[in-house]
Amino acid sequence: MLQSKLFTKTRKDSPKDEVSVNANLLIRAGFIHKEMAGVYSLLPLGLIVYKKIENIIREEMNAIGGQEMLMTSFQPKENWLKTGRWGSMDDLYKVSDSSGREVALGATHEELIVPIAKEFALSYKDFPFSAYQFQTKFRMEMRAKSGILRGREFIMKDMYSFHKTTEDMDEYYEIVKKAYERIFERCGIGEKTFLTFALGGSFSKYSHEFQTLTDAGEDLIYIDKKKKIAINKEALNDEVLSELGLKREDLVEEKAVEVGNIFKLKTKYSAPFDMTFKNDKGESKEIMMGCYGIGLSRLIGTIVEASHDEKGIVWTSGVAPFSVHIASVGNDEAVLKEAKNIHDALEKENISVLWDDRDVRPGEKFADSDLIGIPVRIVVSQKTIEAGLLEVKNRKSGDVKNLSLKEIIAELK
Amino acid sequence: MLQSKLFTKTRKDSPKDEVSVNANLLIRAGFIHKEMAGVYSLLPLGLIVYKKIENIIREEMNAIGGQEMLMTSFQPKENWLKTGRWGSMDDLYKVSDSSGREVALGATHEELIVPIAKEFALSYKDFPFSAYQFQTKFRMEMRAKSGILRGREFIMKDMYSFHKTTEDMDEYYEIVKKAYERIFERCGIGEKTFLTFALGGSFSKYSHEFQTLTDAGEDLIYIDKKKKIAINKEALNDEVLSELGLKREDLVEEKAVEVGNIFKLKTKYSAPFDMTFKNDKGESKEIMMGCYGIGLSRLIGTIVEASHDEKGIVWTSGVAPFSVHIASVGNDEAVLKEAKNIHDALEKENISVLWDDRDVRPGEKFADSDLIGIPVRIVVSQKTIEAGLLEVKNRKSGDVKNLSLKEIIAELK
Repeated sequence: MLQSKLFTKTRKDSPKDEVSVNANLLIRAGFIHKEMAGVYSLLPLGLIVYKKIENIIREEMNAIGGQEMLMTSFQPKENWLKTGRWGSMDDLYKVSDSSGREVALGATHEELIVPIAKEFALSYKDFPFSAYQFQTKFRMEMRAKSGILRGREFIMKDMYSFHKTTEDMDEYYEIVKKAYERIFERCGIGEKTFLTFALGGSFSKYSHEFQTLTDAGEDLIYIDKKKKIAINKEALNDEVLSELGLKREDLVEEKAVEVGNIFKLKTKYSAPFDMTFKNDKGESKEIMMGCYGIGLSRLIGTIVEASHDEKGIVWTSGVAPFSVHIASVGNDEAVLKEAKNIHDALEKENISVLWDDRDVRPGEKFADSDLIGIPVRIVVSQKTIEAGLLEVKNRKSGDVKNLSLKEIIAELK
Repeated sequence: MLQSKLFTKTRKDSPKDEVSVNANLLIRAGFIHKEMAGVYSLLPLGLIVYKKIENIIREEMNAIGGQEMLMTSFQPKENWLKTGRWGSMDDLYKVSDSSGREVALGATHEELIVPIAKEFALSYKDFPFSAYQFQTKFRMEMRAKSGILRGREFIMKDMYSFHKTTEDMDEYYEIVKKAYERIFERCGIGEKTFLTFALGGSFSKYSHEFQTLTDAGEDLIYIDKKKKIAINKEALNDEVLSELGLKREDLVEEKAVEVGNIFKLKTKYSAPFDMTFKNDKGESKEIMMGCYGIGLSRLIGTIVEASHDEKGIVWTSGVAPFSVHIASVGNDEAVLKEAKNIHDALEKENISVLWDDRDVRPGEKFADSDLIGIPVRIVVSQKTIEAGLLEVKNRKSGDVKNLSLKEIIAELK
């Protein structure tokens, strides 16, 4: 792709109303646009990153039998009255039409998925199953100062699973846990992300959060680094510690962002909708549920918080908007021709590439390239043409090598 | 894919509160779920169809230089006050947070795209460009009785283009017109879809609607079938007729659904935001805009209205959820093995296939297959195994042929 064709641009100044590193860098590099506190549009570069992450998650959800669907944001008030959350969920937006009839604006989707599932799943033969979606959530966050880590409008993957027995729910819960580990690994934050014990409320002893270490985190977690176990603040008590075989003195306090969570809901939402099934003896039995969330907007912000330097973003290879950034130096015809050749050759090898073909100073191109954070930068200049080798810089390490195009392709494939 | 794994099912009874053919069939076949009037979730089968259509549109928008992005549903009130639509757009939903601060819930996105574009496009060198998105729209429809043809919440592709001159806007408008024709052709409704003259309001003489003929249509259009020109009701006056060289007596009145529209906005939305550019003499000049919409939810419904029979939906090949539906008859091991072989062989050839592997009567499988509407149905039974040929039925024509797997693959590729 030609950078001159992108309608967005980088900017040098930091947005004045933005205190978070993630939003600051993502805005300056042209990935997102702030509409209001906690509400950000995805610009073309941002959407590419979003789609990469969405696709990683989709592959992993499909691999564990998840069926993708798309529920709505407008949700009947009756459903929310049934679960009791119409009155109790403080951050639920309510919308009225001109006749004064109120609906909920989806903050989550248990109130829709259960009645849908209930319509189709009647016999014991229909279980287990799980359904998921990528859908916008709306939550009335009073404190939306963390960029895209905590939004009033944000995109989430939410999956819901339905089971005949507690054992089956427990088994699937472990399967999802492993899928989540693969997702965060593929997003390049596997090492910084800890499975964290949290209290599960009245319905389950524990739930689990996936917490990624970063100074921007609003959560405090306590990690036994040897055992690779973490506990969140709420769950940090002697009973939990002894049950997990942890000692308080072995724990290190760290700031973290919750990038995913998994819950055993049991009958919390199936019961209010009288969702049951008939077992093979024709007896009516309760349905067990699990729910599993990943905030995609937040995940993008977390990756930026966890991977940047003073010059800009450092995208991990799995989610980078492009694999290679070409900077052509000057407007010499031979240089432009060579840059185009390399651009086309990489695309032919299915290596995604952004070519900075703009008529601007080399220094500006290099600064923008560091800000945008594509993993590999290739410089094409009269000097590199004369040398017969390209100057290849690794964004993360800063290492510079002189390589032939063939060697670059071999390294990237 | 195995049909037994789908958590949704077909249903025999028509939904009681649904008068439209499209919603009736789509609900019975398990593509959509009604949440409330004008609000429908996409079930797994429905999402597959949606994604196929989305991808057709994406390819055609990218081919004419459109840059995909994703704007938000929450939109600042200030922006809507600037264009005057905060007060004048009757179907705009307004949402308040607990502090009483109001925001608009995106009914359309001119109020966001113009300020975004203004931030980046400053010089004459930055034009022209166009940006588009697939995003949910919310509109307070009082009359939401047409299934997914007219929703309160629905998905739309909206593109916005920005130009230095009227001539450039006009030129791009013609390019989009051709892209739209390709889209409706690829969706299988090309022959029934007419480019229709509409009045363009005060800013442009004409706009164009793409109207698809169907009895479910809420619009009346007047077609000169020889000249392949249509006019909508509002534009049907002597001045327009003489300008287009049409005679009233040559026109046939038809019911139609507006599946797309294209507008020359000129400065209608750029002016309120003072979006201008500096020409090569440094003079400040006005920006010309175009906007181009396609309602995807509506398009799915229109395809169903235009292509169904008394037994169910008849998907066109470009948008069908699967290319082939296998119905295995009985639970004989040889039959199941053969069906699995065919399923796997088709998938290997990248031909998408749904295998009805459920333990139900053949009659039920055939009725469900007709209802779901996959273009080709293959029956695998002891009889077909003995014959050494498969029974292949074309959903649209009803024609039945006996073919080998090799012949089927050759026909479908």
